[in-house]
Amino acid sequence: MFESAEIGHKVSKSAFREAVPALRTALLQAQAELFDKKPFPVLVIISGQDGAGKGETINMLYEWMDARFLSTLAFAHPTEEERQQPPMWRYWRSLPPKGRVGIFAGSWYSEPIRQHIAGDISREQLDARATQINRFEGMLAQEGALILKFWFHLSKDAQRERLKELESDPRTAWRVSPWNWERVKTYDQLQDTAGPLLRMTSTAWAPWTVLEAADDRYRSLTVGQMLLKALQERLAQVPAPAPAQAVNPTRVDPDGLNILSALDLSHRLSPQSYKTELAHWQSRLAGLVRDPRFQNRALVCAFEGADAAGKGGAIRRICSALDARQYQVVPVAAPSEEERLQPYLWRFWRQLPRKGTITLFDRTWYGRVLVERVEGFCQPKDWQRAYTEINDFEHGMTDVGIVVVKFWLQISQEEQLKRFQERESVPFKRYKLTDEDWRNRDKWDAYQQAVCDMVERTSTASAPWTLVEGNDKRHARVKILRTVCEQLEAALNHLDPLPEKPPRANKVGKAAQAIKKPKDEKKASKAKR
Amino acid sequence: MFESAEIGHKVSKSAFREAVPALRTALLQAQAELFDKKPFPVLVIISGQDGAGKGETINMLYEWMDARFLSTLAFAHPTEEERQQPPMWRYWRSLPPKGRVGIFAGSWYSEPIRQHIAGDISREQLDARATQINRFEGMLAQEGALILKFWFHLSKDAQRERLKELESDPRTAWRVSPWNWERVKTYDQLQDTAGPLLRMTSTAWAPWTVLEAADDRYRSLTVGQMLLKALQERLAQVPAPAPAQAVNPTRVDPDGLNILSALDLSHRLSPQSYKTELAHWQSRLAGLVRDPRFQNRALVCAFEGADAAGKGGAIRRICSALDARQYQVVPVAAPSEEERLQPYLWRFWRQLPRKGTITLFDRTWYGRVLVERVEGFCQPKDWQRAYTEINDFEHGMTDVGIVVVKFWLQISQEEQLKRFQERESVPFKRYKLTDEDWRNRDKWDAYQQAVCDMVERTSTASAPWTLVEGNDKRHARVKILRTVCEQLEAALNHLDPLPEKPPRANKVGKAAQAIKKPKDEKKASKAKR
Repeated sequence: MFESAEIGHKVSKSAFREAVPALRTALLQAQAELFDKKPFPVLVIISGQDGAGKGETINMLYEWMDARFLSTLAFAHPTEEERQQPPMWRYWRSLPPKGRVGIFAGSWYSEPIRQHIAGDISREQLDARATQINRFEGMLAQEGALILKFWFHLSKDAQRERLKELESDPRTAWRVSPWNWERVKTYDQLQDTAGPLLRMTSTAWAPWTVLEAADDRYRSLTVGQMLLKALQERLAQVPAPAPAQAVNPTRVDPDGLNILSALDLSHRLSPQSYKTELAHWQSRLAGLVRDPRFQNRALVCAFEGADAAGKGGAIRRICSALDARQYQVVPVAAPSEEERLQPYLWRFWRQLPRKGTITLFDRTWYGRVLVERVEGFCQPKDWQRAYTEINDFEHGMTDVGIVVVKFWLQISQEEQLKRFQERESVPFKRYKLTDEDWRNRDKWDAYQQAVCDMVERTSTASAPWTLVEGNDKRHARVKILRTVCEQLEAALNHLDPLPEKPPRANKVGKAAQAIKKPKDEKKASKAKR
Repeated sequence: MFESAEIGHKVSKSAFREAVPALRTALLQAQAELFDKKPFPVLVIISGQDGAGKGETINMLYEWMDARFLSTLAFAHPTEEERQQPPMWRYWRSLPPKGRVGIFAGSWYSEPIRQHIAGDISREQLDARATQINRFEGMLAQEGALILKFWFHLSKDAQRERLKELESDPRTAWRVSPWNWERVKTYDQLQDTAGPLLRMTSTAWAPWTVLEAADDRYRSLTVGQMLLKALQERLAQVPAPAPAQAVNPTRVDPDGLNILSALDLSHRLSPQSYKTELAHWQSRLAGLVRDPRFQNRALVCAFEGADAAGKGGAIRRICSALDARQYQVVPVAAPSEEERLQPYLWRFWRQLPRKGTITLFDRTWYGRVLVERVEGFCQPKDWQRAYTEINDFEHGMTDVGIVVVKFWLQISQEEQLKRFQERESVPFKRYKLTDEDWRNRDKWDAYQQAVCDMVERTSTASAPWTLVEGNDKRHARVKILRTVCEQLEAALNHLDPLPEKPPRANKVGKAAQAIKKPKDEKKASKAKR
């Protein structure tokens, strides 16, 4: 790994002076084209030993490039706010949008390395981090990002040498502290940690470049030239047609039965029972979110469903039980201009609740595998990889104690038609109905298939889907409130602070069929057609 | 994960009878086309609960398809021979070649599940296995394989139900043993293990299909129809042009120095010293491979180098020290017809040494990132992913205690020309020189770049490269013998049975520059031009 960085690379002052002007001009030109066309974001990760000159090289890049379209992202120890969130949260927040270059001084590699050297995480845990990083960078690469990763390396002697040199010059002596000398002592530990980590994370889509760091000019010139070359090559690349890709086996159901068709949409709740049940579960929810234990938790409720299935109404019934300062409702429509310049999950990462708070998503990140899939807004390869990415995303949440409750509201085609017609005839409801709603109806079957695939691929023990029979709004709202209460309560009662598994009763299959009906409901269903 | 498989799927006898004839015809037709064109291999993985009918469905597939081009691969507990090899070895051996369908009754999933339920591996270790599996299947998918993975699921009640049903019928009662009833008790453990494992290994390139297994007809018909559909879709796919792909940053060296140009090719060894040194290291090696501790080890020596760099001569000097029953030399040329129908690493997996034995590779798996890269025999995306795959491959070896020693023999262009001319003039050496050798010379720089990249990406702590100055054959042979001895000895002396790290002195950077020269050599190098 480090061999090529211990052979005495050096660039003379004159060679450096000769090379820089052309490099600067070309870099500025490439950067302008990048900013203009916004075809992809660029991530430059500068890692390596302490005292290897990371700062100098970053300063050099700033001198050479247009600082307006450049951002440097440094990460110290996580802040209190950051510690409340999944570990990748702060990196998601810092991703450069398409058209910009983000320079990472410190990155998702810094913490795992520090923790492993300090003995806080085992070799196996380090391997697991490497896997997470590979998935994260793989996602970025799939989204088009150009990723350059540099590891600045000094031999042990060179590191000592460099510190002495810096110390002896009054202009740079301030940069050397006892802390730096301490690092010389842990040299071997760093090498033993970084070596395997670099090997494991040197992927086809984001390989490491190990650079000999002793010579300032060599180091900076190499970074500058590699960045330029990579930029030029990528900018020149003709956007190719969708790559040929292994066709995924398509699910076949010879008996035509699926989890949606298996739902019993005739569930009804009488107005009287509804009133009682609603009050019961709302007061229960109010109690739960005011429970002191909830201060170490957070709640995400994700709502998906056919048009006019009643998502908004159900969300309002939850909010009534909450303190307005404690929650936010995030309606999800088409992404904004800013959001389109980022990976599709980016806008949801921004909305994660802090401890003790609640976020309700009216439509969600599942748009990728529902509307974007069915309408062809993204390539098959993109929605096919989304299941894994979404699972990773939700796993990140549940891992830090966020309770994730997901609902699919199902209504029959007839019920939907009825509601559409009602919306048309009632003036104050008319705005809710668009041409798109009618168009979506034509693709009913395709949407149903997409929902089945979604549930199969993303209903996990820690973040299960609940399917809700939505033809009767009263039944739906009560079932949703009850499910939120039960999952939240189970999480709070769980002795282990990070529950792997909420009680089975909330899981889809059971929920869809066997959920205990309140007495009145049973009566009501007897009365069904 | 399992929700869609608990809703009571069923196919009636008449619907089954009606569907099967067309399915059979189409399956046979697709299979014939597959065998004829050999565009890709097909892997069908049948997993799931015990008693869920895996065997019946496989039998059904045999009835429907052409058994000649079908193979079933079952894996019991690893045999003694298999336990000596990396865990993936037995699966590599069993991969179906292009044009064939391999049905895996039990697979790389069985052992991790069994071990986790038995408490032999932790949740973290299970996660690590999932990562390995994803990399393995990802490689297969990149190599073109069509992978279908089925998980046969029964609800707890359905499993009990099914066993009772089988027991009550005299024709099937023999299939139920106390062991099966035992499985009902561990139902929850299986679910808790399989759920997360399935989630993590449900990738875009090889997703799981969870199938409700209670109804024989539904289960088999679904597998048959999905297999047919996937086959037809893949066969119909027009082989697309090489997919657009993120351009990897190209390594730039502003000072023109690299690990090969940094080598001092003037090392010389006098004939007299050579004789002494050769005898010394050969006898040392002879002792080491006869050391009882070597019976728990194995040795792989990998030789790469420019044409006429002296690989063959060096290998023969090693073999002289070995017992002919203990080693084999594997010369690697262009892959055979059979080998071309498999992933490129397949032919090397077949050659791994057993415990206590030695395999010497004259050219190796690195051909992928050397000749295939430079000559354009494979796509950039293919050699770019090869670094990771090769690291995984070697890591698999070192993990089970195989010592991996890798040599690059470097000679100067002048020395190569001299040797070529010598070969031309000496009749019995002429056969060694081909037109291709001359052509390769034209691509000298491209090959040197490929070697630098190879060493940077694949010289790991557990399987480091040693660069050998080859202009003087005596020096080269002694350095190689010495390195083999030192790495082997370090491994045998290592108290930990699986050394993560041979002594630094053997690593490339140091080895290239700082390796302790024998006295005579020092004298010799003083005398150099």
